[in-house]
Amino acid sequence: MSDQIHDYIDRNRDRFREELFEFLRIPSVSARSEHNGDTRRAAEWLRDRMKAAGMDTSIEETAGHPIVLGEWREAGDDKPTVLIYGHYDVQPVEPLDLWTSPPFEPVERDGRIYARGSVDDKGQLLLHVLALEAHLQTTGSLPVNVVVLAEGEEEVGSKNLMPFVKEHAERLACDYVVISDTTMVGPGLPTIGASLRGLSYLEVKVTGPSHDLHSGSYGGAVLNPATALARIIATFHDENWHVTVPGFYDDVDEMADFREAIREVPFDEDEFVADTGSPKAVGEAGYSTPERLWVRPTVEVNGMLSGYTGEGPKTVLPSWAMAKVSCRLVPSQDPKRIDRIMEDHIRDVAPDGVSIDVIRHHSGNAWRATLGGPLYDAAARALEQAWGRPVVYAGEGGSIPIVPEFEELLDAPVLLMGFGLPGENAHAPDEWMSAENFEKGTHASAALLTELG
Amino acid sequence: MSDQIHDYIDRNRDRFREELFEFLRIPSVSARSEHNGDTRRAAEWLRDRMKAAGMDTSIEETAGHPIVLGEWREAGDDKPTVLIYGHYDVQPVEPLDLWTSPPFEPVERDGRIYARGSVDDKGQLLLHVLALEAHLQTTGSLPVNVVVLAEGEEEVGSKNLMPFVKEHAERLACDYVVISDTTMVGPGLPTIGASLRGLSYLEVKVTGPSHDLHSGSYGGAVLNPATALARIIATFHDENWHVTVPGFYDDVDEMADFREAIREVPFDEDEFVADTGSPKAVGEAGYSTPERLWVRPTVEVNGMLSGYTGEGPKTVLPSWAMAKVSCRLVPSQDPKRIDRIMEDHIRDVAPDGVSIDVIRHHSGNAWRATLGGPLYDAAARALEQAWGRPVVYAGEGGSIPIVPEFEELLDAPVLLMGFGLPGENAHAPDEWMSAENFEKGTHASAALLTELG
Repeated sequence: MSDQIHDYIDRNRDRFREELFEFLRIPSVSARSEHNGDTRRAAEWLRDRMKAAGMDTSIEETAGHPIVLGEWREAGDDKPTVLIYGHYDVQPVEPLDLWTSPPFEPVERDGRIYARGSVDDKGQLLLHVLALEAHLQTTGSLPVNVVVLAEGEEEVGSKNLMPFVKEHAERLACDYVVISDTTMVGPGLPTIGASLRGLSYLEVKVTGPSHDLHSGSYGGAVLNPATALARIIATFHDENWHVTVPGFYDDVDEMADFREAIREVPFDEDEFVADTGSPKAVGEAGYSTPERLWVRPTVEVNGMLSGYTGEGPKTVLPSWAMAKVSCRLVPSQDPKRIDRIMEDHIRDVAPDGVSIDVIRHHSGNAWRATLGGPLYDAAARALEQAWGRPVVYAGEGGSIPIVPEFEELLDAPVLLMGFGLPGENAHAPDEWMSAENFEKGTHASAALLTELG
Repeated sequence: MSDQIHDYIDRNRDRFREELFEFLRIPSVSARSEHNGDTRRAAEWLRDRMKAAGMDTSIEETAGHPIVLGEWREAGDDKPTVLIYGHYDVQPVEPLDLWTSPPFEPVERDGRIYARGSVDDKGQLLLHVLALEAHLQTTGSLPVNVVVLAEGEEEVGSKNLMPFVKEHAERLACDYVVISDTTMVGPGLPTIGASLRGLSYLEVKVTGPSHDLHSGSYGGAVLNPATALARIIATFHDENWHVTVPGFYDDVDEMADFREAIREVPFDEDEFVADTGSPKAVGEAGYSTPERLWVRPTVEVNGMLSGYTGEGPKTVLPSWAMAKVSCRLVPSQDPKRIDRIMEDHIRDVAPDGVSIDVIRHHSGNAWRATLGGPLYDAAARALEQAWGRPVVYAGEGGSIPIVPEFEELLDAPVLLMGFGLPGENAHAPDEWMSAENFEKGTHASAALLTELG
């Protein structure tokens, strides 16, 4: 990146920080209708900020919170178009009493900027706008054509986003999509997201008697649905925590190359386990913890309910038992097929004497980055410039359904270039973003534009 | 039994029925303090009714609801003393909207007397008082010495009963104890209770992470406590529903003679299963349904809770999972030993990566009648006279802790001579007692006194 742009970012460091704080002071909680005015105010603030940076801007209405667009298309037809996605809405803040300082009064402590939305996603969105400004205010232009697309419904399911993208496919046509809404593997380790897991979420209800029975008068003579459910769940894994549902691994891409790359990732397992509070790391034999999280599918119980769960004893033989069960998937597992084989398996292993109902809640595709190519090569160089060390390619155990959707709808590769850190409390009290990452992320974004130009 | 006493009972049929209705109109719900006045009124009503029958009576205060005594001791030292136990308190009536007629407005429909407390236990207690009156008003005496002991706390745990019995052991000294608070195997089948199961009740808590985790970001890398709990529960039985907890059957009395007798019991399995609403009868291979209920121990899950159990999906990896687990026991299993081996087994099979806490809630001994002897022979003859067919010796799957306690404290055999019927809704809406059983039970009680004299 040119020294001129780099100097601009350094020179405006304090103002950029103050602008981030301004953005963070707007309580744009998309889930709470009492904050609808604030959420719109955040959209308008972002529009004005992009206009000040030198972009064409508009607020696009949806059935929910609006989408904000910032566009600059003067790089010429021979230059690529980059679509930068982010969101200006934030999670609710409850429980308020667990915040060290008020969630909408941003403050820096020990190199961390504490506020709701700091890392998820206002800080990570704004740094791109600041990088765009650094280019436009120093050179009068951008090395590439740019569209910034910011939604206000990411924390409530993004249900108006893809319909908007579909409807405006021509206007949003681009060569690359850049998203900064994930975390780095650790402090000082610039990270490119290489994979996301997909999801298949089922609810199983096992029904025995038509009503709760006395466990003395009836116990032993009819099947207990809680016992039956436990036996069903116990068939999901073997003693090595390998999933034993027939066909579960059929389409799994073993991703040997990515596993190879993962071995180089400086993943701090002790800190990871300490953060969970679990006694130890436990998972599928033959795989490391990062492999278990990033390249291996899982079956998890998310909830379980049956019979009497209050204080003390009650001698009931329950009428029914329920479990919420979700699978995290990897390429190339088809979530609809996994829904089906999970349901088939549950019905197959269910003991005789109960009936089974299965609800298929929702599902989403896994995603794997196609590493290499102009976008990823440019990002690797940009991040290395900002941090002074080579990038790490890390997976992500969770699911971001819009990533494969963007790729499909816009026919453009997506880059996950996140600047969060482990323990950042994204959906919890005391959310924070590393002040260093906010600055270096701005440099990296500016460098990425240069590298892509 | 003499025709004179028999005639008296038949002649006073309508008055006896009206008196039962009077008793049933008193809402003596021991669990509800707003009914404390009613509960005392029921005690006083019973005292007055026993006095009218010709007995010496008293109301004995306890720390809770009073105990009512009715005594007649003029049969002479060479005659045995019979203690008749019952209770005048009743279960709560909620949910009220499921009652066809109001719970404290007794009414007869299709040969059934509907009211809260009809069969549990006012009807079964009062019929003994009426039988005593039939003797006293026709012959001026009883063939045996009699103590009626009626408590008002059976539905709330009887916690003042055994302390009272202990304190008044001399006054309550007796040769036989008679309890009518159980059911017959079916209509027209006079039944003697031959066994009760004991109880061992545990609560298991399995803890993994110190807080709920995101099932995407962490799933597969730390052990899910709900999965762990399900695997623990699945080790309780094999595929034949035989309990596989080591040592569980060590002290089990196979009761070959009782199993032999059970084969003769006209147990209606189709009706039993239909009453439960279960798809079919399921239990330990090699045993019939009545054997599974009466002579075989069980392990049942009474409740289960973990993670998210509300509507829809939530991708949580729960911090903990809980199950309430109870064992029904048979002679000669020691409940304390079963508590211990269950806890040991749970800890042994718990997968590595979670911690286990076990609470031992309560336990009670199983009981088996020593069939034969003057009490049981007299009861068999009395019941056969009343019903015109031989008695059935049936077990009971539930636990009545006071039965073994009475035997131990009073050093006298207990007879379970119940006049309830399957489906009587003892603790549910629309509780009823068979009108025929109320009458025949009165005859049987009068005959029993004669046979013991």
